Amino acid sequence: MADPSNGFCPYIDIRIAGAASGPLSGLTFAAKDLYDIAGHVTGGSNPDWLATHPAAEKHAWAVETLLAAGATLTGKTITDELSLGLLGENAHYGTPENPRAADRVPGGSSSGSVSAVAGGHVDFALGSDTGGSVRIPAGFCGLYGMRTTHGRIPLDGVLKQAPSYDTVGWFARDADLFARVSAALLQGEIPAVPPARMVIAADAFEIADAAVQDALAPVVDTVAAAIGESATERVCPTGLDAWKAQQGVLQGREAWESFADWIDRTNPRFAYDVARNLAQRATITDAEVAAAKPVRAALIERIDELTRDGGVICMPTAPFPAPLAGRRLSKSGPDRDRIRQLTCIASASGAPQINLPLATVDGFPVGLSLLGAPGSDEMLAGFARLLASAGR
Amino acid sequence: MADPSNGFCPYIDIRIAGAASGPLSGLTFAAKDLYDIAGHVTGGSNPDWLATHPAAEKHAWAVETLLAAGATLTGKTITDELSLGLLGENAHYGTPENPRAADRVPGGSSSGSVSAVAGGHVDFALGSDTGGSVRIPAGFCGLYGMRTTHGRIPLDGVLKQAPSYDTVGWFARDADLFARVSAALLQGEIPAVPPARMVIAADAFEIADAAVQDALAPVVDTVAAAIGESATERVCPTGLDAWKAQQGVLQGREAWESFADWIDRTNPRFAYDVARNLAQRATITDAEVAAAKPVRAALIERIDELTRDGGVICMPTAPFPAPLAGRRLSKSGPDRDRIRQLTCIASASGAPQINLPLATVDGFPVGLSLLGAPGSDEMLAGFARLLASAGR
Repeated sequence: MADPSNGFCPYIDIRIAGAASGPLSGLTFAAKDLYDIAGHVTGGSNPDWLATHPAAEKHAWAVETLLAAGATLTGKTITDELSLGLLGENAHYGTPENPRAADRVPGGSSSGSVSAVAGGHVDFALGSDTGGSVRIPAGFCGLYGMRTTHGRIPLDGVLKQAPSYDTVGWFARDADLFARVSAALLQGEIPAVPPARMVIAADAFEIADAAVQDALAPVVDTVAAAIGESATERVCPTGLDAWKAQQGVLQGREAWESFADWIDRTNPRFAYDVARNLAQRATITDAEVAAAKPVRAALIERIDELTRDGGVICMPTAPFPAPLAGRRLSKSGPDRDRIRQLTCIASASGAPQINLPLATVDGFPVGLSLLGAPGSDEMLAGFARLLASAGR
Repeated sequence: MADPSNGFCPYIDIRIAGAASGPLSGLTFAAKDLYDIAGHVTGGSNPDWLATHPAAEKHAWAVETLLAAGATLTGKTITDELSLGLLGENAHYGTPENPRAADRVPGGSSSGSVSAVAGGHVDFALGSDTGGSVRIPAGFCGLYGMRTTHGRIPLDGVLKQAPSYDTVGWFARDADLFARVSAALLQGEIPAVPPARMVIAADAFEIADAAVQDALAPVVDTVAAAIGESATERVCPTGLDAWKAQQGVLQGREAWESFADWIDRTNPRFAYDVARNLAQRATITDAEVAAAKPVRAALIERIDELTRDGGVICMPTAPFPAPLAGRRLSKSGPDRDRIRQLTCIASASGAPQINLPLATVDGFPVGLSLLGAPGSDEMLAGFARLLASAGR
């Protein structure tokens, strides 16, 4: 369905040289089409958003910060339209290649960023994560990728989806570079200390395919050994499906509110499933919102209990390797719902979560995620580097 | 939002000469992009339908019949995507001009056909009418236009929407040419006899703006005088809103079934409102269908009672003149619902309905409709010519 002339898939060239010297000098990066780049329209990879918005007057905070750190911007990357997706298929501009899994989706919504990094087009890339949009593509393409603590990194100049969930994130192929980018964006030191303890999320593992559980088992052992103290627990006693449901309601309401006026005014073109999901979100009632809020509060409390004082939760990043591209909606829809049982945990709690690309199933990447307490972003990036430098 | 390079708005040139001699020799026509034209893909004015279907192998029955009657095809006309609309706005290819009302919609879904005829680009044009798609544009652009009796004209080679409602229809600027085209497509004589009697549908008039009621009043008097016997009655004792509701359920279910598999397979691009309405149709339950069927049966019986033995019902074609183009969905949606209280009557009963373009409000066309018993197509076309020849 894609127009091959548009220049996306995974990205369109926009070159802005970084500062002459800096900690990221000599590196190239790309930014998801939600980040403002001065002089260009931030299109959200939807042609009607592009057509109805003016060019950005200044760079997004994250773009400006990376340029100031010496990195050179070389492209704007495709996203699932308006960041509304987890698989990386865009009906307007196409599906970026998954360089690690031919014919399979790259994951989304940061699809072009993950594809550009995994394919070696850039050294690293900016994504964003509201409901899983950095974690899932990192898992599917075998990259280091992190969703940061909500509110930790300024979202100035980033096209908003659901403000109480939107976060900045990024991808890199190796843990050392990932840590260097993390230092620049978090504006702090990246330590080399392991978490204090680890909870292995039994219920999250149960959602994954058996092959994924098997492939991740030795990685869990390695990580547990590096940490020292670990225990297996059910993260959500009442079932992850209830956590997924509250996320659907609360994120859904916010996303609808972000786009409702523009949709009413513009009647934009969308892929069918994107429009269908938005229309469903338009029907979320105040009563549903009120009922979901205590579930979210309980989730936040439970995650705090498990992660406070340096703890991490480990779980599969996604329940399966990247699915085939171009499948029927009746196949991909249920897969997306399964993914959301895992991604809702960090989304709702505001916690940071990093994907460690340390396993494969049939040659396709599968990732182990570590989720820490809000504010533990540096620790997660540092521990990933520590594991890698130990040859793990 | 439209791509100006696509050639629509109102139509793209495709020239196929008609037979050397015939009753329509020397006339040109265009066909809505639901009609097969051999060697071209019937696109339904949706880019993804176009991309996922092969070229037609032969002409649609109606196209073939017109060519055989001597008319020359000069274009394929834009429609609301997949005929799903009443206003004539297409997010992919643009909104055809209403030559009688600048800045206003042409009406749909036969938007390009009505625009091409009203603008003088062709002598007449094929449209189709499932839920009002010939009647409404004829009303908005001031043309003669007819929805034929359901099943009267073969739909071979016409992209289907809701099979128990889909019909062939056509537009012309004057009643004499309209009757000549009618003779060719109905394959019969067009008589010059008035209806036996007329029912003035009080409840249908009440749905129209006061200005429309006022503008149509002298036309109703003229028509009543030509017929001789007339009476004012409420067509639907329980309220036209209930008739509209059953139409929404039964046509909606059929339309969803027509497109569901293709949507599941393709995840096509649609304007937001089109996708939203389809998604709503996907949720129609069997219980809702079962509840709607007796309402339709009662409607059919009531219309039979009012139109049998040569009777006609007269009513406004639309409740208002063509609305402004490009309005908010929150404005255009309620207008569409109001229209459907009028158009559901012929749609659900399978009756033919002709628009007589004999009035204006503030210079914008408003039409009076005559609805006859199923099978009375020739009578309606003939009476329209009779009125015109009498200078009415």
